[in-house]
Amino acid sequence: MNFCSQCGHKVSLRIPAGDNRERHVCDHCGSIHYQNPRIVAGCLPVHGHQVLLCKRAIEPRYGLWTLPAGFMENGESTEEAALRETLEEARAEVVLRKLYTVSSILHVNQVQMIYLADLPEAHFGSSEETLETRLFSEDEIPWDELAFPTIRNALRFFFADRAETSPSFPLRHLALSPGHEELLLES
Amino acid sequence: MNFCSQCGHKVSLRIPAGDNRERHVCDHCGSIHYQNPRIVAGCLPVHGHQVLLCKRAIEPRYGLWTLPAGFMENGESTEEAALRETLEEARAEVVLRKLYTVSSILHVNQVQMIYLADLPEAHFGSSEETLETRLFSEDEIPWDELAFPTIRNALRFFFADRAETSPSFPLRHLALSPGHEELLLES
Repeated sequence: MNFCSQCGHKVSLRIPAGDNRERHVCDHCGSIHYQNPRIVAGCLPVHGHQVLLCKRAIEPRYGLWTLPAGFMENGESTEEAALRETLEEARAEVVLRKLYTVSSILHVNQVQMIYLADLPEAHFGSSEETLETRLFSEDEIPWDELAFPTIRNALRFFFADRAETSPSFPLRHLALSPGHEELLLES
Repeated sequence: MNFCSQCGHKVSLRIPAGDNRERHVCDHCGSIHYQNPRIVAGCLPVHGHQVLLCKRAIEPRYGLWTLPAGFMENGESTEEAALRETLEEARAEVVLRKLYTVSSILHVNQVQMIYLADLPEAHFGSSEETLETRLFSEDEIPWDELAFPTIRNALRFFFADRAETSPSFPLRHLALSPGHEELLLES
């Protein structure tokens, strides 16, 4: 950030009065420009014994497999964001079952929220963001071609939880930093 | 937003190629300025049979009671944000027990995440943001002087859950819009 989005003058990085962190502050109009983490919302769609993954058609991680997820928009709920992203990226209509993973990804200032979801019909497709969408059984998961550690986490949790005698799919709550991208804080 | 924070030129509101929503776009350098919901993280601190509330020393809702909570910062986890806000606003050191409420507040573009927390010692205080901090038993809660519907929701859930024979304090998951600020989506 170089310029004030309110008045167009130069901003400088300093600690405003009453604050304890450096912010981009406009010396002309006084606006303080806060920067905060963004939410990525998405789904882990389940159809029978299979899960739905998308092959990314965009950077980063072009060509690798991921769960349908993307940035939450203003004016929507986390649930609406997860449903929208699943429809946009995988062309799939799912029914949300529960909030399943919440991961703070410290080095990119994101909080990722993945919902466990049911995919009632095997209807899905590709999109501008997705080269290919397909269902995978557990032994078909391309573990070495997954786009993000958070996706690997979610899938590992899912298959482990599903193997329980009475699966409850508890909320998985993580804080991830470089080199510690699979750290479990609360299960 | 009037000016590009990258180059300082005027921005216009339009739908970028490949997108389906209006964004602030710079016609000079091409930067697209996304605006996304922010996370508010905080705690419901429990000490014995009492809970800790803070009387706000800042607008909005100056003088009304709230739980310690505030905007999550870049570079921290949701847990760290909840602990930091509780220390800053209530001067209280708590131990997080579990993520308890997740509320999308549509009209202000916020997602509020409140943790159930234990306050081992009755040590707390006021701050720049808090006129007074004190412990309340259930029959002392100032229901008509609470700052936000989300705070009322969290306290109502807590006392209802605590009254169960075997309290499990399940995650409470809400989407709130004007006139529907206490709508339960998932319990």
